[in-house]
Amino acid sequence: MTLDYPSILLSDAVSAFASLPGVGKKSALRMALGMLKRSEEEVEQFTSSIARLKKEAHYCRVCHTISDTELCPICSSTSRDKSLVCVVENVRDVLTIENTGQYNGLYHVLGGIISPIEGIGPRDLEIDSLIERVASGEVTEVILALPTTMEGDTTNFYIYRRLEPSGVKVTQLARGVAVGNELEYTDEVTLGRSIINRTPYKS
Amino acid sequence: MTLDYPSILLSDAVSAFASLPGVGKKSALRMALGMLKRSEEEVEQFTSSIARLKKEAHYCRVCHTISDTELCPICSSTSRDKSLVCVVENVRDVLTIENTGQYNGLYHVLGGIISPIEGIGPRDLEIDSLIERVASGEVTEVILALPTTMEGDTTNFYIYRRLEPSGVKVTQLARGVAVGNELEYTDEVTLGRSIINRTPYKS
Repeated sequence: MTLDYPSILLSDAVSAFASLPGVGKKSALRMALGMLKRSEEEVEQFTSSIARLKKEAHYCRVCHTISDTELCPICSSTSRDKSLVCVVENVRDVLTIENTGQYNGLYHVLGGIISPIEGIGPRDLEIDSLIERVASGEVTEVILALPTTMEGDTTNFYIYRRLEPSGVKVTQLARGVAVGNELEYTDEVTLGRSIINRTPYKS
Repeated sequence: MTLDYPSILLSDAVSAFASLPGVGKKSALRMALGMLKRSEEEVEQFTSSIARLKKEAHYCRVCHTISDTELCPICSSTSRDKSLVCVVENVRDVLTIENTGQYNGLYHVLGGIISPIEGIGPRDLEIDSLIERVASGEVTEVILALPTTMEGDTTNFYIYRRLEPSGVKVTQLARGVAVGNELEYTDEVTLGRSIINRTPYKS
């Protein structure tokens, strides 16, 4: 579908919205026309909150998650277990794990995973800073929570090899049948792993 | 799902994106984090194209569609049939009809339809300007292309009554079975209307 907009301003705004992930031309037009229905202050608030995020957001100097301050609220919290560090790919994963309410340790955001195809090597990621962080002594366990893909496995293995000399305990997330899922609909790889890594029954 | 963001800047940007139509919290987070991956110029371009739309866009003084100029490209075109005026609810409808490539007349954007529930009366819409436009003489046919809802029907009827004294021809879009649709899946009201308003067979 090609739309011939009666206004270059409209056309530009539609293109801007259509550049967002998951937004097509029709939704983008709806968004642009929606902006025209808002007050000038509302539009100003909308655009400035996005501009400010880009201009003012920092990354925590310890765990590299997004933060307004030099040290993020998680790293600077006094109630969190500083001996545990969970290694994740990106900021979204931090929020997802936080959301479970089951984790009280710290994080380390790599900013990606090793991917030779995309030309991402260990030097492009926050791996050296993780090794230094562990070497500084306070950390006793590193939990690997990277995706279960070829790239994730490669990154896990690389980090494991780099951490080995330090003697720190390295664990990874349990993989198995999702809670509430029927065995029938669980994929074979997951089910196979869940048999190999079975855990003692606790009532 | 409640996400506790480690950054107020991030949280504000997520709220901004989540205020767009059809965007949930998870997509909004993806959009906000996506902004962080863009260059500063790209983000500036994104926000300024939206801000400019709001600040600089005009509405055509004749047909009230969105336009960069006082008179929109459609109204100022010399190749369009100025005796035909198609009455639509909003700018999106103009684009949708333009997209068919089947219409060469002009438009009149009401800016809404009569809706007592939402407190929208004829005075809130561009109806008076339509009557004046028709009274000025050039228009010979007004095509009503409003939605087939109670409000659309009310607005159609109101406009028809206001236009009656001028003697202008008033038509409406053909309603019937969609091209390519099976009778079996056509709703009864549409099918019923398509029988009543059947047209001569042309080979």
